[in-house]
Amino acid sequence: VTPERLLFVVDLAGTLVFGLEGGLAAIAGRLDVFGVMVLAFATALGGGLVRDVLIGAIPPAAIRDPRYATAAFVGGGIAIVLHRLVTRLPRAVSVGLDAAGLALFAVSGAVKAHDAGIAPLLAVLMGTITGVGGGTVRDLFLARVPAVLRVDVYAVAALAGAMVTIVAIGWGRSRPSAMATGAGVCFLLRVVSAWQNWNLPRVGPG
Amino acid sequence: VTPERLLFVVDLAGTLVFGLEGGLAAIAGRLDVFGVMVLAFATALGGGLVRDVLIGAIPPAAIRDPRYATAAFVGGGIAIVLHRLVTRLPRAVSVGLDAAGLALFAVSGAVKAHDAGIAPLLAVLMGTITGVGGGTVRDLFLARVPAVLRVDVYAVAALAGAMVTIVAIGWGRSRPSAMATGAGVCFLLRVVSAWQNWNLPRVGPG
Amino acid sequence: VTPERLLFVVDLAGTLVFGLEGGLAAIAGRLDVFGVMVLAFATALGGGLVRDVLIGAIPPAAIRDPRYATAAFVGGGIAIVLHRLVTRLPRAVSVGLDAAGLALFAVSGAVKAHDAGIAPLLAVLMGTITGVGGGTVRDLFLARVPAVLRVDVYAVAALAGAMVTIVAIGWGRSRPSAMATGAGVCFLLRVVSAWQNWNLPRVGPG
Repeated sequence: VTPERLLFVVDLAGTLVFGLEGGLAAIAGRLDVFGVMVLAFATALGGGLVRDVLIGAIPPAAIRDPRYATAAFVGGGIAIVLHRLVTRLPRAVSVGLDAAGLALFAVSGAVKAHDAGIAPLLAVLMGTITGVGGGTVRDLFLARVPAVLRVDVYAVAALAGAMVTIVAIGWGRSRPSAMATGAGVCFLLRVVSAWQNWNLPRVGPG
Repeated sequence: VTPERLLFVVDLAGTLVFGLEGGLAAIAGRLDVFGVMVLAFATALGGGLVRDVLIGAIPPAAIRDPRYATAAFVGGGIAIVLHRLVTRLPRAVSVGLDAAGLALFAVSGAVKAHDAGIAPLLAVLMGTITGVGGGTVRDLFLARVPAVLRVDVYAVAALAGAMVTIVAIGWGRSRPSAMATGAGVCFLLRVVSAWQNWNLPRVGPG
Repeated sequence: VTPERLLFVVDLAGTLVFGLEGGLAAIAGRLDVFGVMVLAFATALGGGLVRDVLIGAIPPAAIRDPRYATAAFVGGGIAIVLHRLVTRLPRAVSVGLDAAGLALFAVSGAVKAHDAGIAPLLAVLMGTITGVGGGTVRDLFLARVPAVLRVDVYAVAALAGAMVTIVAIGWGRSRPSAMATGAGVCFLLRVVSAWQNWNLPRVGPG
């Protein structure tokens, strides 16, 4: 499998997962079927669009290649057809699904920025933005404070996964191995912190 | 009339209409005169700026050519001078005005994306974003859930107009004819749905 | 000092100040340490990122050069370490600090846009967006109506500073002199209006 192919598949899988998540959030918010598709699109592609614009990859991959939008809409469609089933699943499944999307996007975003010649610190930040960006756009649309600011160890997990990936590539590890390690770190960190209710320290009174 | 000229005039007319709308929303929200101008600018140019960045037309037309900002500010100025008159108009007029701006932007946005070599599915989405983007930016500024998610058959009308335009161009119709047909479809769909209170199906309980 | 060097130092100082402000807003909003860093980054670099994308300077300076992100995070770190001290300072200090950041960004943003060949009217608007953009992004994240729309004579001060700078450069004044004059006008206008509670006229009933 070529590196480009690997990145593409990882990206598309993340897009589908986040499209499904955005669609479910829209259904929970009592939006109509079109609103479901809008949120599926914004959640699935928002982070990647921002990243591509910022690293100078314009038009962004999601605009050049219709398969991204298609994956997002398929995710939104699954949300509409299967929402009764999906919302009845145990919380572990939805947390796991979200963690998987986060891990896929954090890793692919960091690698794309790195490939575009962005310095390591900022490639890590671009990976983090790719991971948390879609959910942030979704929350802004629903007029609520973004999860990235509310949920402890969410952006931290994306950051850790992106950092591990970039460090591993810097140490000469192969792409698939670096990406698998980074994605694993992000996924585990997110799932375990949600399970154990890990919190980051707050600053200030109280 | 050249195709470029036609696009420019359509775009500028939409800018003026949405500048007026943004200004009126700011006045209704009790903002000061400067806030009125900020919302006029953001509502009139927000959608086009996002579209131009995404299709790689950078700097965006609205930044390269001061006539866009001028049209937006003229719209905001009309809102300030005539708001007493405008808010006393029957609801049909304000819905019609908004539908006209939506139609002009959806059609010009789709054609601009198509001309930049964007695939049909995404050119249609870019037209939709151009149409609904400004109002979405305005609603985010006012910290409320965007109309695109609340109002049924709003983004759908923009999507339909953009789709008809792109399909008509694909079938070899002339620019002016394709754009007039698409704009007409969008305008009628929006006005009739507002008049008849058409709703899209909701998903989920209730 | 070369013009580039001057712009860079002014920009970096503004980044540090707004990073500190974003961090303090996050602490006041009871966010965790990571949320503090996210808001420091978004507040310090949001306006400049939007400006760079709009004037076609892609990747933006803040993505090409890690020193910008570092300055933002140092500002966020100062907020965490010294927040008890900083929040006990008289209001005059925090207003002055914010006015300084606003002035630095409005002036550097206008000059950068002007150097990129943007027309005067829009270079002034780009300076205004650079000044108020970061705080706007921060407020959107915290799901509140942006200060730019709530606080009188805020964006107006940024606009005035950017305008004075661009006019002075147009009249053949040297960079440092034009930028110092513009920054002084913005700073004084903001500080005096906050002190005197100047308000812009409202439009509409009441």
